[in-house]
Amino acid sequence: MKLSEIAEKLGCEMVGRDVEITRVSGIDEAGEGCLTFVSNRKYISRIKTTRASAIILGKDVPPVDIPSLKTDDPYFAFARALEIFFEPLSPEPGVHPTAVIGDGVILGAGVNIGAYAVIGRNCRIGKGTTIYPHAVLYPDVVVGCDCVFHSFATVREGCRTGDRVILQNGVVIGGDGFGFAPLKDGTFYKILQTGSVVIEDDVEIGANTTIDRAAVGDTVIRKGAKLDNLVQVGHGAEVGENSVLAAQAGLAGSTRLGRGVMVGGQAGFAGHLEAGDGAVITAQSGTSHDIPAGAVVSGSPAFKNSDWLRSTVAFAKLPELARRVRELEKEIALLMGK
Amino acid sequence: MKLSEIAEKLGCEMVGRDVEITRVSGIDEAGEGCLTFVSNRKYISRIKTTRASAIILGKDVPPVDIPSLKTDDPYFAFARALEIFFEPLSPEPGVHPTAVIGDGVILGAGVNIGAYAVIGRNCRIGKGTTIYPHAVLYPDVVVGCDCVFHSFATVREGCRTGDRVILQNGVVIGGDGFGFAPLKDGTFYKILQTGSVVIEDDVEIGANTTIDRAAVGDTVIRKGAKLDNLVQVGHGAEVGENSVLAAQAGLAGSTRLGRGVMVGGQAGFAGHLEAGDGAVITAQSGTSHDIPAGAVVSGSPAFKNSDWLRSTVAFAKLPELARRVRELEKEIALLMGK
Amino acid sequence: MKLSEIAEKLGCEMVGRDVEITRVSGIDEAGEGCLTFVSNRKYISRIKTTRASAIILGKDVPPVDIPSLKTDDPYFAFARALEIFFEPLSPEPGVHPTAVIGDGVILGAGVNIGAYAVIGRNCRIGKGTTIYPHAVLYPDVVVGCDCVFHSFATVREGCRTGDRVILQNGVVIGGDGFGFAPLKDGTFYKILQTGSVVIEDDVEIGANTTIDRAAVGDTVIRKGAKLDNLVQVGHGAEVGENSVLAAQAGLAGSTRLGRGVMVGGQAGFAGHLEAGDGAVITAQSGTSHDIPAGAVVSGSPAFKNSDWLRSTVAFAKLPELARRVRELEKEIALLMGK
Repeated sequence: MKLSEIAEKLGCEMVGRDVEITRVSGIDEAGEGCLTFVSNRKYISRIKTTRASAIILGKDVPPVDIPSLKTDDPYFAFARALEIFFEPLSPEPGVHPTAVIGDGVILGAGVNIGAYAVIGRNCRIGKGTTIYPHAVLYPDVVVGCDCVFHSFATVREGCRTGDRVILQNGVVIGGDGFGFAPLKDGTFYKILQTGSVVIEDDVEIGANTTIDRAAVGDTVIRKGAKLDNLVQVGHGAEVGENSVLAAQAGLAGSTRLGRGVMVGGQAGFAGHLEAGDGAVITAQSGTSHDIPAGAVVSGSPAFKNSDWLRSTVAFAKLPELARRVRELEKEIALLMGK
Repeated sequence: MKLSEIAEKLGCEMVGRDVEITRVSGIDEAGEGCLTFVSNRKYISRIKTTRASAIILGKDVPPVDIPSLKTDDPYFAFARALEIFFEPLSPEPGVHPTAVIGDGVILGAGVNIGAYAVIGRNCRIGKGTTIYPHAVLYPDVVVGCDCVFHSFATVREGCRTGDRVILQNGVVIGGDGFGFAPLKDGTFYKILQTGSVVIEDDVEIGANTTIDRAAVGDTVIRKGAKLDNLVQVGHGAEVGENSVLAAQAGLAGSTRLGRGVMVGGQAGFAGHLEAGDGAVITAQSGTSHDIPAGAVVSGSPAFKNSDWLRSTVAFAKLPELARRVRELEKEIALLMGK
Repeated sequence: MKLSEIAEKLGCEMVGRDVEITRVSGIDEAGEGCLTFVSNRKYISRIKTTRASAIILGKDVPPVDIPSLKTDDPYFAFARALEIFFEPLSPEPGVHPTAVIGDGVILGAGVNIGAYAVIGRNCRIGKGTTIYPHAVLYPDVVVGCDCVFHSFATVREGCRTGDRVILQNGVVIGGDGFGFAPLKDGTFYKILQTGSVVIEDDVEIGANTTIDRAAVGDTVIRKGAKLDNLVQVGHGAEVGENSVLAAQAGLAGSTRLGRGVMVGGQAGFAGHLEAGDGAVITAQSGTSHDIPAGAVVSGSPAFKNSDWLRSTVAFAKLPELARRVRELEKEIALLMGK
């Protein structure tokens, strides 16, 4: 496809020669016929060495020697360019004869269900949804339209999802919350987890992530939230609209994130907390306090990121600081005639 | 059901009107006909605003305006109240025709095995145990009575569980321990993991948690221990009786926890360590030293929690401390006539 | 088997009586007829109390009272001794009648495929490979020879593995990378993950570990790398030859580890970083900077391990340091006549 045609599809301004493009590649791997992109400033120096035939760039990047597509949002343009050339996986159409469909199940039009999938009694699955082989829905699950559930995803009894929800492989929705009443003899009494999990529209959940059902009420993942792999969401927690949790992050029970909250990889929240809209908790941080809207916090325990950065610099020099204090003590002792 | 009847079932004292109760709810979600509870002091202020018809409270909580059930242990009473109103998931009875049962398998009375479950040769499963669809037992596994193994749980060859063991979805019991002998050419030589995993009675293991088999001998999870989701237990480790590991915690190989040890979320233990009875390691902490019985430790590396708390307060003020030391140095220089 | 015969097989020097050995055991569990070993210095004191009939020891360990096998590398000798006495799990031979084999699949000689495994269309599986029950290959997957894929392992569309690759249970190879373009309305636009995952020869991947497919190009796990359980490898990342990632470690997208890099448990790398050959990042550390070859780093954020160790010692004494600075301030004020 001609670069000019791609420019038109993506709404970009073309600068330079109208070359032929056959695929989209990363900047280092790109060769003849490749369209590449730079959105992370870290890679700008590589524009000189790329063998790509053309490049998608921000409008603020100075002119380059190869043909380019200029746009306000190069990352989004790259995302759309991928769609031009890439044929995504298409599922086997229809319901595989080995799928087990329980009594009372209602399937919408165009639902695909793969080999050995198990759909429990009274489940309802909206039109256009694909259940890959070996996904399991327990009884009474409600799934929206145009969802994609990959192999080994589980949705436990009575949980509900909206439309366009993507579950990567091995996701567990609605496992029992971790609730036990400690008894006097040191043992623990299991608390029935009578609640459920609700996943709203346009949520994507990464491989092997676990979202527990609540003891009472619902654990909720709001519209547009994105959870990476191996994330833990405890019972009764709530992830706000368009919030993002990076891999291996964890929320303990009953913690509530507002809208657009960003949680870094391996970060954690204790239970019964709130993080306000737009709060950011950076990677590996941990907090046992509420986080105000818009705050950026770091560390374990977490506090204001800008202060934390200065504390970490000082931490690396802490032995030297201690040495200087010892020195001062000697000098003072001398001055005081001790 | 009348509140007085619930009071009698739970052994609580009823205070106030004998209202009709139809279900149990969280304090914020509760409405007409709901019984709710407060055990976490954080929620006491919400008693004034709840729309619940009645509330379970500790005996030490001052009188409230709505009917209440007073008890020494409101959390336990709440757990039991849930059982009155909630009908838990019941499995499909019997052995599903698609389940694959290997040669020499012995099933106790009342065992339920779901669709597509695979039970390896020579397994023994005790009476009343339920294996949900798509759980897999490798050969020579021994399972006790009244266990519940959820979909996509795996129990590898030769592992053994006691009675009333619950495996949530995606649990892996007995994957190969991470054992390799480093060779001089930089490669690693796989060490056969010839041991096994033993899970004692009344253990619950959370979704996608992994417990490795030992190189020699057994990895052991003792009676009554509770492991949350995404926990890692390395080969040859031992989790003591009634110990609790929160989500994403990890034990490296050959580490042994005593009885009633509490491990916070995302906390970790290096290998070949011991934690004494009742030790507590708080969330995100990490230790490469033994922990004495009863100690509460925090931080990475972990030390005494009360000291750590003071150190973290000082850490947040570290840049200011460094500034004050610089100031002192200037003043001393002045005094010393430098 | 006689100890002298084992000595010959393992290339060790026998010291003491030529006893009969029936199995290999850990030093504490060993009894009559057991061969045990010590490689970790921590356990040397237990040589006196072991009831083993013989022991494998380093050449540098002083003479002991029981028969011993002396070698330069006791851990490797132990690994090989296990192979003499242990009969590993053998899979059911052949292709189980319930396995679903897609159109165009090519199977090498001696491939074993277990019950309910699903092999997508156009997959190729090399000779001698075993796919346990309930493993799933999506379409167009290429698997080398003599691999072992355990139950509930997934290999997504178009991913490729070399020879002798071991996937423990629940591994997800090629789930969608976590790539979203943020839009102005606060929502996220899913970026097609058009790339793949390549696993080279002799790689072992632990239970429930997730390795994401790249947006463009490949996520690569190089020859001989070993990944423990619950590890996260982000899209476009690369793990170098013979590198080792302990349990619950995480690499964000596009990060590249060199050869022989060691990553401790629960450690994390931000995205777009490089770690040079032989770098070591200790347990629970986290870095957002490149790590030079051979460096040993610790902490979050990570810096030179030897400095970090000193900083952590000073951290534990930080409240006392603050107290001493307050004391100095008082004394200076006195001296300055304030």
